[in-house]
Amino acid sequence: MLNIILLSGGSGKRLWPLSNDVRSKQFIKIFKKPDGTYESMVQRMYQSIRALDRDAKVTIATSRTQVSAIHNQLGTDVGISVEPCRRDTFPAIALAAAYLHDVQHVAESEAVVVCPVDPYVDNAFFGMLEKLGARAAEGKENLVLMGIKPTEPSDKYGYIMPEMGGNNSQKLTERTVPGVNKVDSAAMKQIEIAEENIEENTAVRRVRTFKEKPDVETARKYIAEGALWNGGIFAFKLGYVLDIARRELGYTDYQDLFDRYETLPKISFDYAVVEKEPRISVMEFSGRWEDIGTWNTFTDAMQDSTIGDATMSDSCEDVHVLNELDVPVLVMGMKDTIVSASPQGILVSSKEASTGIKPYVEKMNQRIMFAEKSWGVFHVLDVEDQSLTIKANIKAGDHMTYHSHERRDEVWIIIAGRGRTIVDGMEQIVEPGDVVTMQAGCKHTIEAITDLKLIEVQLGKDIRVSDKKRYVLEEPLRTGAEGTGTSEEKA
Amino acid sequence: MLNIILLSGGSGKRLWPLSNDVRSKQFIKIFKKPDGTYESMVQRMYQSIRALDRDAKVTIATSRTQVSAIHNQLGTDVGISVEPCRRDTFPAIALAAAYLHDVQHVAESEAVVVCPVDPYVDNAFFGMLEKLGARAAEGKENLVLMGIKPTEPSDKYGYIMPEMGGNNSQKLTERTVPGVNKVDSAAMKQIEIAEENIEENTAVRRVRTFKEKPDVETARKYIAEGALWNGGIFAFKLGYVLDIARRELGYTDYQDLFDRYETLPKISFDYAVVEKEPRISVMEFSGRWEDIGTWNTFTDAMQDSTIGDATMSDSCEDVHVLNELDVPVLVMGMKDTIVSASPQGILVSSKEASTGIKPYVEKMNQRIMFAEKSWGVFHVLDVEDQSLTIKANIKAGDHMTYHSHERRDEVWIIIAGRGRTIVDGMEQIVEPGDVVTMQAGCKHTIEAITDLKLIEVQLGKDIRVSDKKRYVLEEPLRTGAEGTGTSEEKA
Repeated sequence: MLNIILLSGGSGKRLWPLSNDVRSKQFIKIFKKPDGTYESMVQRMYQSIRALDRDAKVTIATSRTQVSAIHNQLGTDVGISVEPCRRDTFPAIALAAAYLHDVQHVAESEAVVVCPVDPYVDNAFFGMLEKLGARAAEGKENLVLMGIKPTEPSDKYGYIMPEMGGNNSQKLTERTVPGVNKVDSAAMKQIEIAEENIEENTAVRRVRTFKEKPDVETARKYIAEGALWNGGIFAFKLGYVLDIARRELGYTDYQDLFDRYETLPKISFDYAVVEKEPRISVMEFSGRWEDIGTWNTFTDAMQDSTIGDATMSDSCEDVHVLNELDVPVLVMGMKDTIVSASPQGILVSSKEASTGIKPYVEKMNQRIMFAEKSWGVFHVLDVEDQSLTIKANIKAGDHMTYHSHERRDEVWIIIAGRGRTIVDGMEQIVEPGDVVTMQAGCKHTIEAITDLKLIEVQLGKDIRVSDKKRYVLEEPLRTGAEGTGTSEEKA
Repeated sequence: MLNIILLSGGSGKRLWPLSNDVRSKQFIKIFKKPDGTYESMVQRMYQSIRALDRDAKVTIATSRTQVSAIHNQLGTDVGISVEPCRRDTFPAIALAAAYLHDVQHVAESEAVVVCPVDPYVDNAFFGMLEKLGARAAEGKENLVLMGIKPTEPSDKYGYIMPEMGGNNSQKLTERTVPGVNKVDSAAMKQIEIAEENIEENTAVRRVRTFKEKPDVETARKYIAEGALWNGGIFAFKLGYVLDIARRELGYTDYQDLFDRYETLPKISFDYAVVEKEPRISVMEFSGRWEDIGTWNTFTDAMQDSTIGDATMSDSCEDVHVLNELDVPVLVMGMKDTIVSASPQGILVSSKEASTGIKPYVEKMNQRIMFAEKSWGVFHVLDVEDQSLTIKANIKAGDHMTYHSHERRDEVWIIIAGRGRTIVDGMEQIVEPGDVVTMQAGCKHTIEAITDLKLIEVQLGKDIRVSDKKRYVLEEPLRTGAEGTGTSEEKA
């Protein structure tokens, strides 16, 4: 059985307007499924792992802001190790490891594979995760890394330098790289041999050393020497990381680490663990592995040129449209262009210029205009000085928390579906056309009996997301129960 | 005193998404005023005429769909001759003339100037309208036209061929035209003389003949002979057109013509009147006069490169953004591009391709997502199968008609301002947070005491704009009256 920790971090700047402060790139639904709907990176990664191993124990290490979106996209079965604040990857992995051990009761002798949630990979990748785990379980090394076969001499990555064993393995791992001088015919032959010996390249090799983000020229040299990109994917026995956490962070148990999380140092797993460990091996992955953190790499991963309501003239070339609004986008006579629209705003960019988006988005300092919650999705329809109008879609069986606001009144108008509200303890069945008014201070929640849609109007001089008090219901809402007669009698 | 008939027609296809079936191009607010706000073509034309002659009697000849927008943009003082359906310019001008005579009591001896509402002109144009009217009042000819000095040998216009009087007037009216062969230095001298004699060129000349939309080569020849574009601007004595209407359309009075409007032939004023009239003169206008019916000519008329919430990277060149949404548009690395967004949709087009927009918009067959009403503006926030959510902004003192719907319930939530509702005869003062529910069949209206904003949710299986019954209130709403105590007592 596979134990996987998926690291889900990231900010929402580079893929604006599809990302925002609560939706990082891994939650954008971009990959077309056979049924014509779309899934996100996190859904694709999670489902692929589960397809390989139905019993795989997947834990997502993430920040509080992503928990709702993860529940919305993956359901509530997935394990989540919530980081109380942002630290670097070592505290995050240590916390997730403690969570696996103390909450999920995984034994210290079991292998765990850590993997970022956001590379775009082909299916062979998931088999590799399994191999990494199996190798770590053997215990021959303390750490097993996945080395990504470089496709260009990039200065964005760290490089893993494997040891060269045997007589001709040095030759076998020589390779051509785009941008590297042309190879002569002798070298060409070596490459052909390398291709045939692909299995050998993916075998386990000891790691000699690491080289952090070299310049392009140096990277070229490293690649010629057989270096691999460090993709941040590693496997170890659970006890190995817990031991280091005990030593370095004073770890006693999960709750202790969680409570002290804010006081932990910001330090990466590479620095705190990998660079100090002499017994490391690497397995090479030569399939598709892409870091799709910018708009132009993101659109490269799109199967179709448009998602959402979009029309393009025949004269368009290499144009991608991602439209999450309900209104049409019309593009005429454009080339090498990205058009994206969401409740957050509209982006029109040449593919080349799109990598420079971050400073522009940082300047905007925008309100969050849409978000996925554990109970469904909402988006802002209208913003006024003293009111906010939103639309909420709640999935059948799900419900909001029971909560109140100090400084605003709210009105719900049910526009589709059937639900049950509790307002200051009074239960009521609601249907389209029903209006529920809630004064400031009034406790309220709504549960969807069938998929439910409502318009919520918030009114007040000081409307803030933070103005929310949560309460525990004495009796939890009975999900999906149609028989509501008794509940109504309670009112 | 100037009598002006402004012809306001046009469809909403070519400037989508800023135009739609109820907002033609002349209502788009594009021209920046000194105070930083924007005005539309119809506002600019109307205000400029009133600035020249405070007492000018301006009548707008238009279709029913534009009446609300005209009242919204020009107020309720403006005369409107409503065409019950679309005919061509002769029935439209005849109806407006009958309206001037029978409703506005303009004498048959008074001069009237007819002018399309949508050319983009400089201020000298309005002085020309006055001169045209004065000349028509003299009665030397039956029709006085404004001839536009051509700027290119276009095949889009009709050409007016003036008679050449005197010895050297032929020479004086020779001119260079972009795209015409270069002139020699002797010709250059003639042009200089022509420039000096600009007054003579704008003098009144008899019209020899008309040439309808020639090809570019022929147009070039005509221009060299002194031809002028026919801009559809003509002046006449009111009785002249009424006489022709009596003869050709069997006109008896305004109401009769209005009632029979649908049975009238589709025939243009040029064809029915101008081409048959031997006594016509023309005055030349050589100032700015542009037909801005397409996106690229429209953006040429913009003072700034952006209107609305828009950010451009420094690498943008010749980009225009018109954003009527409340969310930001970010444009990076684009050239020669138009970006426009409204509740109707989003357009991204190269300037070159933008002229081909019409067929794409025709295919969309869209719901109207925003409109100006006499009482303010509304736009659609959300569309579901059985609900429609809109936001309405009502100007202080204005009110909706008293009306009901057969097949839908409605809910209002007041989000800003103070108003008075009447629902099935019951009056009530409403303020932010107040909710008004209206079952199907229930008569209702709302009046804004101060500028008022509300969210309206419509609910029903068959929501249509046409589902509306109007009623007359026994006592009209007292506009702007703050003292509402007695009204409330009625409830």
